[in-house]
Amino acid sequence: MAAPVLPPLFYEELLRRALAEDLGTAGDLTTDSVIPATAQARARIVARAAGRIAGLAPALAVFPLLSPAVGSEALVSDGDDVAAGATLATLAGPARALLTGERTALNLLGRLSGIATAARDLGAQLAGTRARLAGTRKTTPGLRALEKHALVCGGATPHRAGLHDAVLIKDNHLAVAGGVGEAVRRARAGVGHLVKIEVEVDDLDQLREALAAGADVILLDNMLPALLREAVAIAGGRVPLEASGGVRPETIRAIAESGVDLISVGWLTHSAPALDVALDFEPSPAAGVESGA
Amino acid sequence: MAAPVLPPLFYEELLRRALAEDLGTAGDLTTDSVIPATAQARARIVARAAGRIAGLAPALAVFPLLSPAVGSEALVSDGDDVAAGATLATLAGPARALLTGERTALNLLGRLSGIATAARDLGAQLAGTRARLAGTRKTTPGLRALEKHALVCGGATPHRAGLHDAVLIKDNHLAVAGGVGEAVRRARAGVGHLVKIEVEVDDLDQLREALAAGADVILLDNMLPALLREAVAIAGGRVPLEASGGVRPETIRAIAESGVDLISVGWLTHSAPALDVALDFEPSPAAGVESGA
Amino acid sequence: MAAPVLPPLFYEELLRRALAEDLGTAGDLTTDSVIPATAQARARIVARAAGRIAGLAPALAVFPLLSPAVGSEALVSDGDDVAAGATLATLAGPARALLTGERTALNLLGRLSGIATAARDLGAQLAGTRARLAGTRKTTPGLRALEKHALVCGGATPHRAGLHDAVLIKDNHLAVAGGVGEAVRRARAGVGHLVKIEVEVDDLDQLREALAAGADVILLDNMLPALLREAVAIAGGRVPLEASGGVRPETIRAIAESGVDLISVGWLTHSAPALDVALDFEPSPAAGVESGA
Amino acid sequence: MAAPVLPPLFYEELLRRALAEDLGTAGDLTTDSVIPATAQARARIVARAAGRIAGLAPALAVFPLLSPAVGSEALVSDGDDVAAGATLATLAGPARALLTGERTALNLLGRLSGIATAARDLGAQLAGTRARLAGTRKTTPGLRALEKHALVCGGATPHRAGLHDAVLIKDNHLAVAGGVGEAVRRARAGVGHLVKIEVEVDDLDQLREALAAGADVILLDNMLPALLREAVAIAGGRVPLEASGGVRPETIRAIAESGVDLISVGWLTHSAPALDVALDFEPSPAAGVESGA
Amino acid sequence: MAAPVLPPLFYEELLRRALAEDLGTAGDLTTDSVIPATAQARARIVARAAGRIAGLAPALAVFPLLSPAVGSEALVSDGDDVAAGATLATLAGPARALLTGERTALNLLGRLSGIATAARDLGAQLAGTRARLAGTRKTTPGLRALEKHALVCGGATPHRAGLHDAVLIKDNHLAVAGGVGEAVRRARAGVGHLVKIEVEVDDLDQLREALAAGADVILLDNMLPALLREAVAIAGGRVPLEASGGVRPETIRAIAESGVDLISVGWLTHSAPALDVALDFEPSPAAGVESGA
Amino acid sequence: MAAPVLPPLFYEELLRRALAEDLGTAGDLTTDSVIPATAQARARIVARAAGRIAGLAPALAVFPLLSPAVGSEALVSDGDDVAAGATLATLAGPARALLTGERTALNLLGRLSGIATAARDLGAQLAGTRARLAGTRKTTPGLRALEKHALVCGGATPHRAGLHDAVLIKDNHLAVAGGVGEAVRRARAGVGHLVKIEVEVDDLDQLREALAAGADVILLDNMLPALLREAVAIAGGRVPLEASGGVRPETIRAIAESGVDLISVGWLTHSAPALDVALDFEPSPAAGVESGA
Repeated sequence: MAAPVLPPLFYEELLRRALAEDLGTAGDLTTDSVIPATAQARARIVARAAGRIAGLAPALAVFPLLSPAVGSEALVSDGDDVAAGATLATLAGPARALLTGERTALNLLGRLSGIATAARDLGAQLAGTRARLAGTRKTTPGLRALEKHALVCGGATPHRAGLHDAVLIKDNHLAVAGGVGEAVRRARAGVGHLVKIEVEVDDLDQLREALAAGADVILLDNMLPALLREAVAIAGGRVPLEASGGVRPETIRAIAESGVDLISVGWLTHSAPALDVALDFEPSPAAGVESGA
Repeated sequence: MAAPVLPPLFYEELLRRALAEDLGTAGDLTTDSVIPATAQARARIVARAAGRIAGLAPALAVFPLLSPAVGSEALVSDGDDVAAGATLATLAGPARALLTGERTALNLLGRLSGIATAARDLGAQLAGTRARLAGTRKTTPGLRALEKHALVCGGATPHRAGLHDAVLIKDNHLAVAGGVGEAVRRARAGVGHLVKIEVEVDDLDQLREALAAGADVILLDNMLPALLREAVAIAGGRVPLEASGGVRPETIRAIAESGVDLISVGWLTHSAPALDVALDFEPSPAAGVESGA
Repeated sequence: MAAPVLPPLFYEELLRRALAEDLGTAGDLTTDSVIPATAQARARIVARAAGRIAGLAPALAVFPLLSPAVGSEALVSDGDDVAAGATLATLAGPARALLTGERTALNLLGRLSGIATAARDLGAQLAGTRARLAGTRKTTPGLRALEKHALVCGGATPHRAGLHDAVLIKDNHLAVAGGVGEAVRRARAGVGHLVKIEVEVDDLDQLREALAAGADVILLDNMLPALLREAVAIAGGRVPLEASGGVRPETIRAIAESGVDLISVGWLTHSAPALDVALDFEPSPAAGVESGA
Repeated sequence: MAAPVLPPLFYEELLRRALAEDLGTAGDLTTDSVIPATAQARARIVARAAGRIAGLAPALAVFPLLSPAVGSEALVSDGDDVAAGATLATLAGPARALLTGERTALNLLGRLSGIATAARDLGAQLAGTRARLAGTRKTTPGLRALEKHALVCGGATPHRAGLHDAVLIKDNHLAVAGGVGEAVRRARAGVGHLVKIEVEVDDLDQLREALAAGADVILLDNMLPALLREAVAIAGGRVPLEASGGVRPETIRAIAESGVDLISVGWLTHSAPALDVALDFEPSPAAGVESGA
Repeated sequence: MAAPVLPPLFYEELLRRALAEDLGTAGDLTTDSVIPATAQARARIVARAAGRIAGLAPALAVFPLLSPAVGSEALVSDGDDVAAGATLATLAGPARALLTGERTALNLLGRLSGIATAARDLGAQLAGTRARLAGTRKTTPGLRALEKHALVCGGATPHRAGLHDAVLIKDNHLAVAGGVGEAVRRARAGVGHLVKIEVEVDDLDQLREALAAGADVILLDNMLPALLREAVAIAGGRVPLEASGGVRPETIRAIAESGVDLISVGWLTHSAPALDVALDFEPSPAAGVESGA
Repeated sequence: MAAPVLPPLFYEELLRRALAEDLGTAGDLTTDSVIPATAQARARIVARAAGRIAGLAPALAVFPLLSPAVGSEALVSDGDDVAAGATLATLAGPARALLTGERTALNLLGRLSGIATAARDLGAQLAGTRARLAGTRKTTPGLRALEKHALVCGGATPHRAGLHDAVLIKDNHLAVAGGVGEAVRRARAGVGHLVKIEVEVDDLDQLREALAAGADVILLDNMLPALLREAVAIAGGRVPLEASGGVRPETIRAIAESGVDLISVGWLTHSAPALDVALDFEPSPAAGVESGA
């Protein structure tokens, strides 16, 4: 699953909101008072740590919102791995725009690359198994599209985009709706021909009920590897099985070796640490204040 | 600094955006097909881990956007410490609204409480020193107000709200503008009488220059405790000193004991793990499907 | 598939935009100059023609945006069939709000009920066949959620919500991407485990290629009934088959009798005539001007 | 009345909303997985049926929102008549952008051209009479500006833009406000010197009352041709007369021959079928995948 | 022309924007730190100077956006005259909400009442003449609806709402389009039957040309009273005449006595001083801090 | 304090709103009917009166929103003084866009330049004193950023941007919170290290209390010059003193000579008259209608 190119429609409003909350109505007091309007500068976005990149296009799109005179060149692409110290992009233009946009650009790039890096690293543990790493809907409010994109950049599968594109019957639904079989049948009757139905099960009886009811995918909730192996045997390849719940770096390999098809991890989007990225100004003559400024 | 009560103006649009990205145009396929429109339920928001709470009001405000018939009662307040298993709030109303809003509410509450908890825990290490824990502008795009609020709930000071409310002259400014003293003087001339001026220094010469130029606050960037102690001695209490850069849980105590006034930590907002919170449906009779539904 | 209850989130902004384009900045010149602010009135929303109702909740939600003092009672529900002359809802409150909101409410209700009625009537021709009527993405810009809802109210299945919730490989994709099999394989590799893949085929060779490639659903484009029957025989029930293209009321029965599972009709949303609905004021004493107004 | 050139301000937000409802947060699953990012294509927008064009500029403006690399050339203008099979515009650029924007562009163009075509065809029946075809406020919520523009493209007069630009006293106003004369006098006293006042009358007595009260325009509601002729004789050319209510293609000529000045028809905007338009990809070498893509 | 009741649709978004620019992301630092969350208060909105009130409803609507617990009672209505010291409304509720909303409410009320007062005072000079005071389109960006409402509250006629509701051919149009007569004829052919056409003339020849061309209203630009009287004689009551350009309090009476029908004054909206209004807290026991707060 | 260059982020939405309220859904009826679409024109923005310019960039940014073919050149900069008759900028492009955008551009430019001019003129009276002219939060709702910018263009200091960037404890706070000292101490405990605290005092006792409590700035409310001089003596230069309340052109010099540091004047933003600016079309051949248009 190649990382798609994000159209600006997916992030322009977010960038405007992010700049608005940073600039308020008074603007960048520091830059406006300390840096001459005519000063030009060159800068590089660099990774301070090794990682997988995600969100470079929206990060670079911050600066033209501040000045159309800023030019930028991406040296890597979303989905690329970079070493610590790598230059991700170069920027040139009015120094004020570079300074004012710096934090907004880095906040977005660091968060999304942190998710991509975490997905890459956790996914690496699945090598040689049939299991694929998957995200969840545990994303930051307002950043669903971008964080799902970061998961894909990290090699994970994004799972549902939201409540609207697939059925996932969970324990709280069952608490209200009754048994697994009844819930799957209601869902089948209630959604269109292009909607898949996944159901969460806690034990092997529920698993058999879900298989009998014709679920398209079955989520095995919080099962230990031994139980997962039994579930894999019972399902016999009829439908994909997803393991979920309390997956940790130290347990994911054993889970994967049980033979499940997917392992979903909410931690990737709700708790992955940001990648350390920075904007370094170049001390070249071009960065100085123009004569007469 | 008591946690302020957030007016709904600060989060209503965010909640609508978060619900919109989850619901798309097709709505909650699972809930709408599996749960009868007339089903009523009761549920509790619980903490699965111990922590400091932040964001309970916006989390509860999700549900009335889905159905005005949902009622809720908060059992704790933002800024409270809770044990694992604690009930934070109770909800009652149409089961569909509770199920559809669950993830949006928990995503917000978990993230903000994660920040508050991290701030509380890191701040606890400063006990007995004069240092106070501070946040930074390294927040999630679109969540500045809420994440700063979470820092306050965690006992930290929020630092600048953005580029617009205080001057902070950083290394990149100095790369363009020249020396510390000149930059401070330009800032003083360029901003109003209610704006404080902080400047970042890398060594003791710059510190002396900043003091001479009349900076209101001085940020000591990436200095080891021994150097910090020298800086504290030089400043002699004339202005608050802030230590910043690469602060980690295992180093923060030594930094605090140097005598600085503030220690700012970007990790609190860009990388703190979410607090594990959940919505548990109650299997009470009231949660069942009404007769005839 | 019962018509879901639309949360106000799905239409509030649309109602505000619709009122804004009607009111401009000068408001309702007629009502404000002719009707006293204190006048109260009672009115009924009536169907001038028989039909299937859709959109009653958003229609009624128009009036409280103009005055919180307007009360309304719905006498039918979305998805109900009504006779010509039937009263759909009653309204009572300030006469100005009823008069100002009338056209916006009726425009929405008439359009959505027109779609539901058309879907009901066309769907009635499918009785006794296995075919189900389906909508398309040929909806009015900005009304996707509401028009898909109207299709469901009319007994049709909504088909894809948009480009984001299922794959549908069409002729223009194939023109760029190569053959049916290759396109299906690329899609399978590129999307997640909960996304179904439908592909459009023009002839029986492409149909066999699609079956071999493992498409989840196959769209038979512009085939005559005889050819559709052949296609049904070839597919042998392995995947659902959808007939599409140039379906007309006089041809749909023959298409349905070919044994296909779905028949999708763009006309339902892009060209169905509106249902004739009106707002009738009651000449009761309560509708008069209050004394002293 | 030449069709005005619509400034982008009139449709940009609508296009963004339309794309957003189609793309959700996951984007175009089909195109992103099946079509290489580097693939280039050429395509033509064609009319599958003869008609009058409206909305070509907003339709073409869809594509640059997806990729600034898309170029387009309009071969006809709004207000032009085209034959079945005519090419309306050519497009060239990244295949993904063309495929993703196709439906949004066509949905808008088909609807607006459908209205223009219906207005042209109905208007053709008025040849040789003094009557002019007019629209109403029975437009799609959110599309008032565009649908009124389509009416003008079809040769009709748009009538009021909304409640804010002219007075039109209707039966429901009279039910609350009292008689025709009193209502006209209140309106005259209540609006500015640039606002015209039209009033709806049901019979000849009301017509005489409206003339005496000095209405600027009089709407003759649901009158048969014989009665319309009497009304025309009574008015004696003092004010324009508008016939409205239940106008159908088979009755409009007789209505026009009564001598009225305007015939308004809500059907033009609430029920006119869309014009069949399509996007045809060209199988030229340039449309293929670039080597190495 | 009675002042219409403004529906909240006309100002809610403006109030949210106004509060957002005042609160930023950090909120009301003063109130949140100085006033206990539990403190209750009572306050009065008072006029510090005599004037005509406009905008009281939107001013009071500020407070519930901050806390639904704020109650208010209006003691006067828009369009009322008040003496210096008069209480316009009372407020009661959480002290924080009253303090935080004070300035936003007063800024709006003061500006709109300033316009209404200026219109009232200038209009008073027209007593006994046929001239009526009129506004222009010289309003504050974003406040067109509210400032036109304030003009009506002040007894003036609002003139065009904007470019969209009437034709006004001005000197710059004539510079491009040619003579007065040609321009009026083009306009007549290009707009609908409910649109009036006004044209600006500089001398009596143009006036005669405008009359001959059938303009509905004629604007006499920058004419001295003697010339205005000639114009009035020439027009002979066939169409309303509007005097405009450089009208000042000391010249308006002479202009009015020339016999023109309207005198439009941009100064009313672009330069009228605000009315001095204030929020006075009551030192009653209820305003104190609750015990234990 | 040089006038900062406003990024388009600060005014683009305001311009769109302003155009939207002028254009409605029907557009510019006059221009669209009278001026050929192909007509080109040249025009100049001129000052009809001498003044200080503010807002030229946003004024010029109006026209490209109507047609990207409009070019403009600014001949002066924000903060420049101009004589009556001076040309501020030249424009060239489609005549329709120039005519349609004229009023929106001038409304903004006139208002902001009026504020800048008033600030310049009032500030000139402070020459030779230590007092600096300051604005307040008494700005037009929605224009905070632009009106504060205009103050800076006029040489004044903008004072607080809003409630969020500094503490200002006023009489109404004291009415609820108790004494000056207690309020200052609460504020000090409740805000961050970069927030300054100003407190309003009515008499010299309160002044001494504020000094003792460590306020950063003290506002002397409504004091006569003699009392101000006493206050200056008491403060002894320890903190800046701001005089406020009822400052008028005829009293400001005496106030300044008392030795205060700042004099804040709400009149600058709530009541300063607009600068008279206009758009003059050039009668050059290029302004005519192109042959064949």
